[in-house]
Amino acid sequence: MKGSCNTLFITDKEMDMTKNIIGVFGPGNVSDADEEWQAAFSVGQQLAERGYVVLTGGLGGIMTAASKGAREAEGITVGILPGTRKSGPANEYVDIHIYTGMGEARNAVNVKSCGAAIAIGGGYGTLSEIALALKCGCPIILLKSWSITPHGAMEPPGLLIAQTPEEAVGMAVLAAEKGGF
Amino acid sequence: MKGSCNTLFITDKEMDMTKNIIGVFGPGNVSDADEEWQAAFSVGQQLAERGYVVLTGGLGGIMTAASKGAREAEGITVGILPGTRKSGPANEYVDIHIYTGMGEARNAVNVKSCGAAIAIGGGYGTLSEIALALKCGCPIILLKSWSITPHGAMEPPGLLIAQTPEEAVGMAVLAAEKGGF
Amino acid sequence: MKGSCNTLFITDKEMDMTKNIIGVFGPGNVSDADEEWQAAFSVGQQLAERGYVVLTGGLGGIMTAASKGAREAEGITVGILPGTRKSGPANEYVDIHIYTGMGEARNAVNVKSCGAAIAIGGGYGTLSEIALALKCGCPIILLKSWSITPHGAMEPPGLLIAQTPEEAVGMAVLAAEKGGF
Amino acid sequence: MKGSCNTLFITDKEMDMTKNIIGVFGPGNVSDADEEWQAAFSVGQQLAERGYVVLTGGLGGIMTAASKGAREAEGITVGILPGTRKSGPANEYVDIHIYTGMGEARNAVNVKSCGAAIAIGGGYGTLSEIALALKCGCPIILLKSWSITPHGAMEPPGLLIAQTPEEAVGMAVLAAEKGGF
Repeated sequence: MKGSCNTLFITDKEMDMTKNIIGVFGPGNVSDADEEWQAAFSVGQQLAERGYVVLTGGLGGIMTAASKGAREAEGITVGILPGTRKSGPANEYVDIHIYTGMGEARNAVNVKSCGAAIAIGGGYGTLSEIALALKCGCPIILLKSWSITPHGAMEPPGLLIAQTPEEAVGMAVLAAEKGGF
Repeated sequence: MKGSCNTLFITDKEMDMTKNIIGVFGPGNVSDADEEWQAAFSVGQQLAERGYVVLTGGLGGIMTAASKGAREAEGITVGILPGTRKSGPANEYVDIHIYTGMGEARNAVNVKSCGAAIAIGGGYGTLSEIALALKCGCPIILLKSWSITPHGAMEPPGLLIAQTPEEAVGMAVLAAEKGGF
Repeated sequence: MKGSCNTLFITDKEMDMTKNIIGVFGPGNVSDADEEWQAAFSVGQQLAERGYVVLTGGLGGIMTAASKGAREAEGITVGILPGTRKSGPANEYVDIHIYTGMGEARNAVNVKSCGAAIAIGGGYGTLSEIALALKCGCPIILLKSWSITPHGAMEPPGLLIAQTPEEAVGMAVLAAEKGGF
Repeated sequence: MKGSCNTLFITDKEMDMTKNIIGVFGPGNVSDADEEWQAAFSVGQQLAERGYVVLTGGLGGIMTAASKGAREAEGITVGILPGTRKSGPANEYVDIHIYTGMGEARNAVNVKSCGAAIAIGGGYGTLSEIALALKCGCPIILLKSWSITPHGAMEPPGLLIAQTPEEAVGMAVLAAEKGGF
């Protein structure tokens, strides 16, 4: 943490802080035996090593995996929770808890707060975040996630598709540095 | 309107009002020369004829088409707007204007307020509403809309797919009467 | 209802529909033995008689009273609910149920959707709606409600204070017709 | 920062992270010549020195003052913004930018995410945050802020009123450690 803190907040005063958050979106119902969980852990770890704050929905599964990976690399993690302080805690690897109390409407907040995001695995909430990211101009990288095709098209839209955690992180960092689209 | 008013609000006091709204979701950038626009107009008309309130996002394209269809059948239309009274008006066929001022986060409100919904055409906002509907238990019928497939699956999930406006309306009415899933 | 329907939706096509909703805000924990409840019932009735849609938070107490008054005058009532279809129903006098699922954040939606609003009685939620109305440019009339004074001032800010339901309705209608501030 | 980082994230693993955020709410239109601005700066500084993350609405005036104070004490600052990345930046002293894109509805998020909060100065947005805090169970301390009295009461409700920044910080820390009400 000391390292990333220095990088983030002290040394690099000139860093554009509006670009320093990268999201990791994915379902809450996968376990650490799943390859998606392992991918999310690795993604979280790599993002923190590169000095990015890792933002998730704050709950279980992919969200826990990414937050745990970031924590182990001494990064800062943010969780944007659908519920309130009273309706239940975030996973234990979240540093900054934002309780929205607005249910799935918080998915739009997730997307708007990231310089780029990586979606891992499936789930309908994740699909909504992919769609909202595309709608709101947040670059989104898909890793083992949904395939989507518009009506009348043979091919899916020009999404960024990664095959490995390393590739996903590389694409996300590049997109965040470019400043969205 | 007189007819639907009587049906909705006066005669059938016992009707479950929590089931009386059906949503029509779709992009704002289609014109009345497009088949999706014509489909949405027809869907709005049929829903109003059957006594349903038609809820849309309140803007142009598919949203205007469905609202206009419902208006011509003397139905009541609701628009859940992303902006505020000051940021711009709804289309002229919306009766009840709900200004959320919350941007795309309002897509979750659209979904939660309908007994069932029909998605027509593409657009990323529409895809987010399909996903949020699936997430929140709002039955969603796709008509000339997205094809979505989860990671690792050969087939899309068990969505309700309609081929015609008539079929879409029939499916939506049936689903709304069942009370969601 | 037939009358108000005709007025609202059929005959007066030229009426500016963006001004046709007036809100009634107040706490959920008052009973029909309380003078605030009776005032809210009368306000709802008078607003409906004048052709306005009555918008409330959809729950009990003042919200039920205003909706019931409007229903008895054959008006249309809208309820903007903090919860979801699954978390609980609106009061039985609400025609159009908007389920936001966003808790108290829905108070901002209430305020933004009204041409003017009347706050009756106390409660902290009501105070937040008074403040948000003042912030968002929704004319707000106080009837048996909070007294608020900014720091350093001897007098409360220039709020519209009504002494009777009749006066409150008159002020709200006038403000809504003027189009906010 | 190094010190507070260690305190917050590394050394004190057992610290309850759900209680580590304290909010500072206040209007955007005060300048550093105003006593409220100086009070907010001092409050931000003291909160950071005690190891708390300082959460504000991310904009100017009181929000800038509190964030700047916290930054100078090497603390971490969070800004919950009403707009989006495209609609405008946070003040330069915000580390973690949460863009909600939901306008004043974000005031509810501010309140729900804090273990306690201090309101400084006036403004209607601030009054709404005071009310929402009281509604949502977030302990709220008033410093040079609104006076509010419910209908029929001679006295304001039992709010925590502080006379100095030191007293406000002491009350907020105590309340946050108690865990709300």
